[in-house]
Amino acid sequence: MDNYFEVGLDELRQRLLTMASYAETAVNRAVEALVQRDNALAQRVKDEDRVIDHFEVEIDDLVIQLLTKAPLATNLRLVAVAMKISQDLERIGDEAAKIAKRARDLSLEPPIKLNLDLPRMAGLALDMLKKALDAFVNKDPVAARAVIPRDKEVDALNKQIHNILAQHMVENPGAIGRCLHWMVASKSLERIADHATNVAEDVVYLCEAQDIRHTGVKSGAAIV
Amino acid sequence: MDNYFEVGLDELRQRLLTMASYAETAVNRAVEALVQRDNALAQRVKDEDRVIDHFEVEIDDLVIQLLTKAPLATNLRLVAVAMKISQDLERIGDEAAKIAKRARDLSLEPPIKLNLDLPRMAGLALDMLKKALDAFVNKDPVAARAVIPRDKEVDALNKQIHNILAQHMVENPGAIGRCLHWMVASKSLERIADHATNVAEDVVYLCEAQDIRHTGVKSGAAIV
Repeated sequence: MDNYFEVGLDELRQRLLTMASYAETAVNRAVEALVQRDNALAQRVKDEDRVIDHFEVEIDDLVIQLLTKAPLATNLRLVAVAMKISQDLERIGDEAAKIAKRARDLSLEPPIKLNLDLPRMAGLALDMLKKALDAFVNKDPVAARAVIPRDKEVDALNKQIHNILAQHMVENPGAIGRCLHWMVASKSLERIADHATNVAEDVVYLCEAQDIRHTGVKSGAAIV
Repeated sequence: MDNYFEVGLDELRQRLLTMASYAETAVNRAVEALVQRDNALAQRVKDEDRVIDHFEVEIDDLVIQLLTKAPLATNLRLVAVAMKISQDLERIGDEAAKIAKRARDLSLEPPIKLNLDLPRMAGLALDMLKKALDAFVNKDPVAARAVIPRDKEVDALNKQIHNILAQHMVENPGAIGRCLHWMVASKSLERIADHATNVAEDVVYLCEAQDIRHTGVKSGAAIV
């Protein structure tokens, strides 16, 4: 295989992983800002979202360059899927910025006395993302497939937090505004898990379509 | 240019537009189910979401086939952007399904007496989508750029509806559950406008990167 192309693929993988680590940091900081009522940290997460946005643009450019050089159809699929993954990472950054916004608003109001385990939700969602990206790097459809059902766990946590908050609202109408902020933050974490699931699904699609092609089971309808 | 490639591009455009019309119908039906308290229509939207999901898989396959045949780098960008647009359309379908779920839940409870203009929000969001897709088909960055600021209009409507509902919750704690359903539906419409904005931004990127290349302003860092 073309050595320049291989170097480009390595570069693409590295940038995706760097982008992912920025997105991960943003999510962790946003949740910390929420829990610690840290207005300055929340503002920082919001400001730094443009770094993650910029990664997406850079990766798109790299993808286009690589597509012009890809020697094999299977590589094309890999490169195209990388573009989709970067879009999911960009949206994770957006969700982190939304959590940070709620953290800022909440830091200016009295705290509500509820035990809401958003750090655990964030931990689960980010672990899903990490495993999905590992599966991408290792081209491991089994590991990618294992990520997908874990989304239900995060959904269940979000539902649980939603119900605690809805109940608290009924009993404390004065806390409705603050409860809504917490609900939105929890929903953002649930969406981050959705994005991690998308990444995992893309990896399964990437690997299994290749497998099918390699075994010659699927001929591929000749549209072009 | 390669005629087979041109035929494939036409096919890709057609499928994207067909997918978009399914997504549009889903959003309109979901909002109708919400307003008319029509449980059966809500269920139908939820069931038919898999048709939209399937379009994304089909378009991904077509994109990969086209990428193997693309004679020019500018076409590669067009094809890659089409893949991103199909992802946004798929997410619009998901939001429609979420609205439908809230519509179903709300149809089983007493109505709340509030004037919430979700059909107007839906109309604005879908008009943004339509114009962004027209801009894609016509390769018109000016039209695409004009879509982007309209997202603020939908954001403002969502905020207004959110505030009306939050106020209603404070005054009617018994209606909190129903108000939350309406809030989530309104938020979904706001996200549909976000996806339309993404499509518009992709079209600007597609067109302007080409323009910059054509004028030779940007040489493009030679990574591969």
